[in-house]
Amino acid sequence: MPIPFGDDITGIRLENGKIAVLKTDMLIAATDVPPGMTPFQAARKAVVMNISDLASKGVEPKAVLVALGLPGETSKEDIEGIGRGLNAGAREYGAYVIGGDTSEASDIILSVMLFGICDEHYLVKRSGSKPGDILAVTGLFGKTSAGLKMLLEGLDAPEQLRRVFLEAVYMPVARLKLGLKLARSNSVTATIDSSDGLAVSLHELRKMSKTGFCVTNLPTAPEVDDYAKLHGLSKKELTLFGGEEYELIVTVNPEKWDMATRIAESVGGRLIPIGHVTKDNEIVFVTEGRKESIPPGGWEHFKTSSST
Amino acid sequence: MPIPFGDDITGIRLENGKIAVLKTDMLIAATDVPPGMTPFQAARKAVVMNISDLASKGVEPKAVLVALGLPGETSKEDIEGIGRGLNAGAREYGAYVIGGDTSEASDIILSVMLFGICDEHYLVKRSGSKPGDILAVTGLFGKTSAGLKMLLEGLDAPEQLRRVFLEAVYMPVARLKLGLKLARSNSVTATIDSSDGLAVSLHELRKMSKTGFCVTNLPTAPEVDDYAKLHGLSKKELTLFGGEEYELIVTVNPEKWDMATRIAESVGGRLIPIGHVTKDNEIVFVTEGRKESIPPGGWEHFKTSSST
Repeated sequence: MPIPFGDDITGIRLENGKIAVLKTDMLIAATDVPPGMTPFQAARKAVVMNISDLASKGVEPKAVLVALGLPGETSKEDIEGIGRGLNAGAREYGAYVIGGDTSEASDIILSVMLFGICDEHYLVKRSGSKPGDILAVTGLFGKTSAGLKMLLEGLDAPEQLRRVFLEAVYMPVARLKLGLKLARSNSVTATIDSSDGLAVSLHELRKMSKTGFCVTNLPTAPEVDDYAKLHGLSKKELTLFGGEEYELIVTVNPEKWDMATRIAESVGGRLIPIGHVTKDNEIVFVTEGRKESIPPGGWEHFKTSSST
Repeated sequence: MPIPFGDDITGIRLENGKIAVLKTDMLIAATDVPPGMTPFQAARKAVVMNISDLASKGVEPKAVLVALGLPGETSKEDIEGIGRGLNAGAREYGAYVIGGDTSEASDIILSVMLFGICDEHYLVKRSGSKPGDILAVTGLFGKTSAGLKMLLEGLDAPEQLRRVFLEAVYMPVARLKLGLKLARSNSVTATIDSSDGLAVSLHELRKMSKTGFCVTNLPTAPEVDDYAKLHGLSKKELTLFGGEEYELIVTVNPEKWDMATRIAESVGGRLIPIGHVTKDNEIVFVTEGRKESIPPGGWEHFKTSSST
């Protein structure tokens, strides 16, 4: 198998050094769809969250298959919204919905399967981080955590923050262009997407690469900083223990850092350094001379958010 | 797209005349799992029903991906049964379960995706039937209908029939070897599997091939004949309007009929002629000089079986 177990995607070797990459993830309305999200948005997100995993591997998505479970009473309008959302999610990233299946279910279920092809040579795994590599992320964190706190715990925010947080929850974006470009540059030694939360995803990467990380810069979005102050929340928790965020976490060979940042900028993206790879088997956060361990744990589903 | 819309599977052209074939179908415990079926059997069936669609196209299954929805209270034993069932279904047909995803759901949901590769040249479509072709099936029908009548309507059967019917319901078999061999022989002009019931599947084939069928021989299993007599049921209805049966329905060039039957025998299978392809746009059943139309309609889920 060209991709080791423990990765979120699987692949099969074809001829000519190519790999057929497959990825599946299921979105279930009762546990994965927060209040106020439309069927269009839920369906689009079901595709985007799968695209994000391919993005982290440097794999171009080609085709989307959908197995749809729908309660008998689902309205025509909602079904059309779902169809439009699936297509929108695929088309935004150059893929097509090519087929699927519909069943009757007690809840809305969107089981999305993605098919992509890549050169084995360019496939970025989770297991390549080397001590000394620069640890970086492709965007700032915490907006989804804040949005879900608003929606599920009623911790409101001023209109301007509100809009930013709801956009993050309802219309997440996968970093496909950036992931593809970085994979082809050979500057990135390992990648993972942050869909399980920054801390959990860092621990995944740590385990697969058999390294550690020293985080020196917490990539908190400024709006999240404001929101944390407003409600007396921990900015660190909002940043590290969120989830349903689709930034990439990458480790970069320091000699290729300048090239990697230029590549990111060339597709309108960015790389934000947050620390470096160590040879220790742990993840530490160093700030103002104090050092503390970052535990795994974080987001599972929005239902259990209060436990994190 | 190498496979027309309306087919149950979809494909993407690769290099060298190959097609990557994808197929997905979702099994939902509440609507697709009859009483008495174990988690092992349900999971195995979730794979087999997808294999059957590939069999009808002459496509060898390579990899199985599974998105699993499980209620929080699912026992460890049931989860292990599901795992074993998925693997059993795949291994019986030479494929491997290579990955997947688990989510929390309110019902047991098995969303199975199959990936296969075939030469475009050998792909058998639903649209190739020609007037004069022989219409044939790969096995006898009605055992699953009878089994579901036993399980859902309490119409019991003597032990010997009981065993045959329950085997058909709980441990269905896909005609993969036969489908692959027939596809490679170029004797078959169109194929479909009979998972939606014989009548419905014949109508699908008729629509896609823009032909008609004249059925002269009803392929009823002898046990179903006995069961129909026992309960005063219509043998024709049990045969035509069942479902969840995984025989292949094929149309064969009459000049290649002998070759096709020899091929079927060479893999321990058989081809049972049941009529021929006509140029009319309807399906008729001719028996004892009487001619009647076979309507579409039939099986949807076992829940609605009383309406068919």
